[in-house]
Amino acid sequence: MTASRIKEELGRRGEKLEQFLATCLRDASVPESLVNAMEYSLLAGGKRLRPVLCLTCAGLVGQPVEHNILPFAAGIECIHTYSLIHDDLPVMDDDDLRRGKPSCHKQFGEAQAILAGDGLHTEAFHLMLATRVAPGHLVAAMRVMAHAAGSRGMVGGQVLDMEYTGHKKTDAKHLSTMQAMKTGALIQASCQCGIILAGGSDEQEQVAACFGRHLGQAFQIMDDILDVVGSEQEMGKPVGSDEGADKLTWPSLLGLDASRDIAQKHIQQACSALEIFSGPDKDFLVDLAEYVVARAC
Amino acid sequence: MTASRIKEELGRRGEKLEQFLATCLRDASVPESLVNAMEYSLLAGGKRLRPVLCLTCAGLVGQPVEHNILPFAAGIECIHTYSLIHDDLPVMDDDDLRRGKPSCHKQFGEAQAILAGDGLHTEAFHLMLATRVAPGHLVAAMRVMAHAAGSRGMVGGQVLDMEYTGHKKTDAKHLSTMQAMKTGALIQASCQCGIILAGGSDEQEQVAACFGRHLGQAFQIMDDILDVVGSEQEMGKPVGSDEGADKLTWPSLLGLDASRDIAQKHIQQACSALEIFSGPDKDFLVDLAEYVVARAC
Repeated sequence: MTASRIKEELGRRGEKLEQFLATCLRDASVPESLVNAMEYSLLAGGKRLRPVLCLTCAGLVGQPVEHNILPFAAGIECIHTYSLIHDDLPVMDDDDLRRGKPSCHKQFGEAQAILAGDGLHTEAFHLMLATRVAPGHLVAAMRVMAHAAGSRGMVGGQVLDMEYTGHKKTDAKHLSTMQAMKTGALIQASCQCGIILAGGSDEQEQVAACFGRHLGQAFQIMDDILDVVGSEQEMGKPVGSDEGADKLTWPSLLGLDASRDIAQKHIQQACSALEIFSGPDKDFLVDLAEYVVARAC
Repeated sequence: MTASRIKEELGRRGEKLEQFLATCLRDASVPESLVNAMEYSLLAGGKRLRPVLCLTCAGLVGQPVEHNILPFAAGIECIHTYSLIHDDLPVMDDDDLRRGKPSCHKQFGEAQAILAGDGLHTEAFHLMLATRVAPGHLVAAMRVMAHAAGSRGMVGGQVLDMEYTGHKKTDAKHLSTMQAMKTGALIQASCQCGIILAGGSDEQEQVAACFGRHLGQAFQIMDDILDVVGSEQEMGKPVGSDEGADKLTWPSLLGLDASRDIAQKHIQQACSALEIFSGPDKDFLVDLAEYVVARAC
């Protein structure tokens, strides 16, 4: 499948989610200025990769469950968005631009941006709790998600990222662990939760976790590469920012070619994990995985 | 019951929770610097009012459930603590002192403090999900908690607090709404969730919500009063900070005497709501409510 077809399919699969996101934060009891800041970032046109992975993995199990699982998928996107808002803050990565627009704190000020992030963070769980599946499945999926998003996963990864920045002595093992926590954990959990919510088996869950883990690693390596070779327009944010910030990245550690090779291997492992599945959802996941590396080769 | 007996009883009822909190954040996969910052604030010796309310309200229903509900109560304290860390940040309330110690960002820097708050926020839900009750009860209680802690409650209240600061034209209705969201919602939800988790009836849940709502309002009014008349030692933070920051408070709006009267009325309403219950847990809640106003009369 060509890159434009993949993007089109990603958009198609995210259509109902997009509609859901457009209204889910609105509530008369939420201060207008807060909901504006939350929506500004949530509706800034991301790829919706994580929620679409969740919905598609649920489809692998073969239940027509999209409608029931939408709130959970929306919650995942809220977690991802809150983390971007907080990461962009001046005391963190200090990024003025996000998805081609001023980042949340540039638009609304730092205090409002911190609170918009906090609001999206809690709302993520509030939304997930509205998922229409058996409560036992929901609790199991939310445990996976909370584990991946917190100090053991995404938040911990951001701490390691800050600690490694400027420290040339860290190695590929450190980098791999940091990225697995910071980016990989949420991608992996999105896949896993799709299976759990759809009532899949332990084996199916493990396969989805393996797919997600390798996809997440490849995704982050390509992000590092694109920061070197991509254009600002493609990325929606200034390129070369990693080097400027003295960040530990795959290209800085191993060079571009070796980095691409590693990403390619992760994608192969991701795709072969899916062999127990068949059908259009499986085919799309394979195409999507291949697109992740193709976008910067 | 005397003030010192109430404090003693509050401590006794929070004993197992304290032990639980002391170990629950430790995990080999969490970066050491992050867990240190999270524990610094979580274990700084708060009153544990909210989790003890949750545990005590569960006791009202008459089930011996403390052990099973401890993770949920710990989660509530994590939410409360994360909110204090973020509220203390320089771009928010800019408080250097919390519970008699340097606030989290003074001790660990702003970036680490934001992430420690984020880590506690996610961990709150992760802990709640480990509560050992029927999944249906757990999902119901978590929905109440997420509603109270997010943009419709605590986070929204903090936004209103910032908006009202320096604006003399706001009135008692605005102030009441703001405080009900910022402080009251979490206190009310703590009471409500105790009933839900213990399998109580809708009527019992409504009564606990009513008790918590009035207790929360009285609690916040007394906090405003103590900021004027209390000593720095009692409060663990500088007094007079509300006036210095030009905050909207009850004493600034109505004076000290009228503020005390309103608090007293809330406590009366809180206590009469509890009439359907009896036993030592009910008696403790009544004593606790009366103590809340007594501490500054």
